[in-house]
Amino acid sequence: MPILPLPHPSNRRERHSIELRERLFRAALDLFAKQGFAETTVEDITNAADLGKGTFFNYFPSKDHILLAFAEMQLGKLRLAIDEARRTSVPMPQFMRSLAALMTQEPVRNPDIIRVLLQAFLSNSQVREAMLDLQARVLAFHAEMIQLGQGRGEIRDDLPAAEIALVFRQTIFGTLLIWSLYGDSSLQARMDSAFEIIWSGLSPRTPRNLSSSDAVTPVFR
Amino acid sequence: MPILPLPHPSNRRERHSIELRERLFRAALDLFAKQGFAETTVEDITNAADLGKGTFFNYFPSKDHILLAFAEMQLGKLRLAIDEARRTSVPMPQFMRSLAALMTQEPVRNPDIIRVLLQAFLSNSQVREAMLDLQARVLAFHAEMIQLGQGRGEIRDDLPAAEIALVFRQTIFGTLLIWSLYGDSSLQARMDSAFEIIWSGLSPRTPRNLSSSDAVTPVFR
Repeated sequence: MPILPLPHPSNRRERHSIELRERLFRAALDLFAKQGFAETTVEDITNAADLGKGTFFNYFPSKDHILLAFAEMQLGKLRLAIDEARRTSVPMPQFMRSLAALMTQEPVRNPDIIRVLLQAFLSNSQVREAMLDLQARVLAFHAEMIQLGQGRGEIRDDLPAAEIALVFRQTIFGTLLIWSLYGDSSLQARMDSAFEIIWSGLSPRTPRNLSSSDAVTPVFR
Repeated sequence: MPILPLPHPSNRRERHSIELRERLFRAALDLFAKQGFAETTVEDITNAADLGKGTFFNYFPSKDHILLAFAEMQLGKLRLAIDEARRTSVPMPQFMRSLAALMTQEPVRNPDIIRVLLQAFLSNSQVREAMLDLQARVLAFHAEMIQLGQGRGEIRDDLPAAEIALVFRQTIFGTLLIWSLYGDSSLQARMDSAFEIIWSGLSPRTPRNLSSSDAVTPVFR
């Protein structure tokens, strides 16, 4: 199953093209994880993918674009999730918990890849500018989901959705960062702990089952 | 005022030694922030500090040790805070909020330095191993404070202090990471938002002012 979100292929040539792009993408991520981003050349990638060097540039303008494709892949999953969130009646906190599990499937579950990605993000390269653009879109999607939950009375609405989305994303990145330093199998447990605390903190301030009066003073500040 | 936590100098020679170490440390951080860690040589640092190259190695075994000194500096602040926390009657959530402000004073407030530090952290260098050691001690301090707050009934005690400390640290690092990418003046506001949500999520599950019965069903899960 392709991991890059791409339009549904209509013919054999398109399917072939998608397969090649996917093969280059996977080979590149493997090499980045094994030997580092800076240390990997385009030729290393095409060799590993058993393709000619020129082929690479038919699919990616530069090595940097592999990292952007990774971020686009995550964004594609989020986009699908938003549509799902609108259709489902699953409470938003629960929905976003399963979303986190979906977003941290392979190849995100590889700490070496996360470290390479974060390093590229932190370095002063062009990657960073493009990544920040993508991040703005990720943030907008998160805010949309939070707002949906607020409208349904499932998430506190005394804080703006955009502010909650910021904290939410920072929590996810902080969890990925610290976990990637250890590189053990604790990612899911770390995410669960973080979500447990974050979602407790995001419960509506005047829960309906606490009191029949909406004027009840919020206990948790 | 020296920013490196060092024993109180007893004589002029020691004071001089501390001043030189401090001068090298500040010059190094400035250069890392301006031109990057890898791009800065020991000679660049001693030139900027107006000292002979050999002087550097009287104070730091290697360039890496500047980064470790940075982490030690933060650890030193935390160590003092723990003693303060034991003496004070300020509620722990409030105490840890002001601690965050203290921990993010200069030179932490420089996004370039934070990015350099996180990059070194993520790279596969010896810095990383030493940093993880320091992190274990940071984590132990956090857990100690959380436990103190739990004992006083100020922090929920249905989760182990060590687990809460993990989430707490991940939140701080996530906030630093994302903020450092933008490098704007939003650090304090981002920390405040994160703390507002985290501390709501860490309120005792059966607050004493909610009901006279300890058997009340927790509302926020």
